[in-house]
Amino acid sequence: VSSELDFIAALRRLAGDPAARGLSDDVAVLPVGGGSLVLTHDMIVEGIHYLATDQPEDVAWKLVAVNLSDLAAKGAAPLGVLLGYVLHADEAWNLRFRDGLAEVLDAFGVPLLGGDTVRGPAGAPLMLGLTAIGEVKSPVPSRSGAKEGDLLWVSGTIGDAGAGLRIARGDMEGPPDLALRYRRPTPRLALGTVIAPLVHAAMDVSDGLLLDAARMAEASGLSAALELEAVPLSASLIRLLGDSAEARVDAAVAGDDYELLFAAPPETTEAIAVAAAEAGTPITTIGRFRPGSGIVLSHEGKPHPLPDRLGYQHESVRPSG
Amino acid sequence: VSSELDFIAALRRLAGDPAARGLSDDVAVLPVGGGSLVLTHDMIVEGIHYLATDQPEDVAWKLVAVNLSDLAAKGAAPLGVLLGYVLHADEAWNLRFRDGLAEVLDAFGVPLLGGDTVRGPAGAPLMLGLTAIGEVKSPVPSRSGAKEGDLLWVSGTIGDAGAGLRIARGDMEGPPDLALRYRRPTPRLALGTVIAPLVHAAMDVSDGLLLDAARMAEASGLSAALELEAVPLSASLIRLLGDSAEARVDAAVAGDDYELLFAAPPETTEAIAVAAAEAGTPITTIGRFRPGSGIVLSHEGKPHPLPDRLGYQHESVRPSG
Repeated sequence: VSSELDFIAALRRLAGDPAARGLSDDVAVLPVGGGSLVLTHDMIVEGIHYLATDQPEDVAWKLVAVNLSDLAAKGAAPLGVLLGYVLHADEAWNLRFRDGLAEVLDAFGVPLLGGDTVRGPAGAPLMLGLTAIGEVKSPVPSRSGAKEGDLLWVSGTIGDAGAGLRIARGDMEGPPDLALRYRRPTPRLALGTVIAPLVHAAMDVSDGLLLDAARMAEASGLSAALELEAVPLSASLIRLLGDSAEARVDAAVAGDDYELLFAAPPETTEAIAVAAAEAGTPITTIGRFRPGSGIVLSHEGKPHPLPDRLGYQHESVRPSG
Repeated sequence: VSSELDFIAALRRLAGDPAARGLSDDVAVLPVGGGSLVLTHDMIVEGIHYLATDQPEDVAWKLVAVNLSDLAAKGAAPLGVLLGYVLHADEAWNLRFRDGLAEVLDAFGVPLLGGDTVRGPAGAPLMLGLTAIGEVKSPVPSRSGAKEGDLLWVSGTIGDAGAGLRIARGDMEGPPDLALRYRRPTPRLALGTVIAPLVHAAMDVSDGLLLDAARMAEASGLSAALELEAVPLSASLIRLLGDSAEARVDAAVAGDDYELLFAAPPETTEAIAVAAAEAGTPITTIGRFRPGSGIVLSHEGKPHPLPDRLGYQHESVRPSG
């Protein structure tokens, strides 16, 4: 891992342009006309970010959704995507991927703008990349803007995709709605757009709620205090894994949620609730930012120990977060 | 190949947005403010687009240069790049890649804006992707705008990189300047900017002069008549391979030139010559567009047969050209 961090640190020195945001946000932000363009590029690798047995339609969905989720976190409306595609040796796989791509682009109203398709060496694992471009009219929230006293909010429910991955791997039995949360994450585009002007900081939850909350706290020079009992769990997840503090911690370190995490002052609570209702996305306050550093957990008013692992690092390091 | 073409055709149906240019140009073009943003994404794969024995600094150079070359062909000034990087198992390789990236970004004054770094499965060949973003104030030339009677122009010299690849592979002895043309192509950014307002069509020569000229002719619904004796060859290449019609055809199908190919009406000849002199890049007229289709060769006034292969397809298919 140290060589990976060396590599990222070395890249950071090439990213002096303010648009790069020091490679510490999830996106690049280019000022244009009266607003900003937001750009993100995420890759997914077979056997690391998805299972070789995952359906090709779902792989296409995930590739697009994880990138659109980064746009959503910045309040950006997607303008289009560029695809970097390595052809699968199985021709049917490619065409099914294409169908999944059509489905996800259509679901979110995003055009394919270009890209590159190459044939990899025989037997090489697939590696797919996508660049998503979006447009923001309001100031673009960073992950570093949380202020002391801000409430920490999260959208939707947490931990479903983590359980879904275990179901997809055959490690656990469970209902199809949880597997679907793993296979087909929903970027929170409508919510992102309406909350962007109201928040101090925003990012998406991709690697685990605790890890991503810790990253926002660190970037903002603060500590985040989370109330485990407030972390929103789905009824399906509670039925499957129960509602203990331990089950809640498991959900909060699982990753692949693609929910939005944001910080906003208490006085904007009503405006945020109205905006989220407009967007049709449930949101929940799960904690508060305080002076200090790191993350602190409580459960029903009592301190709760931090788990050894705050999230899912999946051997991946993103220069852009 | 037919499955690849099926796949590309299937992708094309997802690219209805005008910014995608039907995936038939090398870039996507988004109108913003008073101009346009141009976006391109090209991948390079170990063993296919570069040799596993190539120096990591040169691989970084090539990855950036091939993308900037697409911007150059559209007259775009680069705003930045996003890197999709799969870590090499050899840590020293990664750091040398980083050095090469620093060198090429510095050489062309382009910031790194973001991207993604992932660890691939053990033993997997490297696949690297780059998205480049540029800005154009004038209308953005397409590859399909050539008109009957237009002159066909090319920048620099042709065939050097092809000879350089053979030298790098050890298939041939030759001078280091030719090997350098293969290892470190120069995107013609300054030239692209000054000629964009003057031309009817422009693209870069990446897969062979004849193949790329044929593509411009086809996209424009015309035939291109090329004079082999006019194709600009470097003194080094002539010394190495001679100056016969056959040597000229070999140079014109070799690929990896990353020169600019453009079509302009004869009355703009002086303005183009002045602009190219300003940019410090030599340019040459090598033919003319006529009614019809396909490409026609002549050598010193006599028809010359077309070679079986017009260029280098390197088992790669680009949705965006």
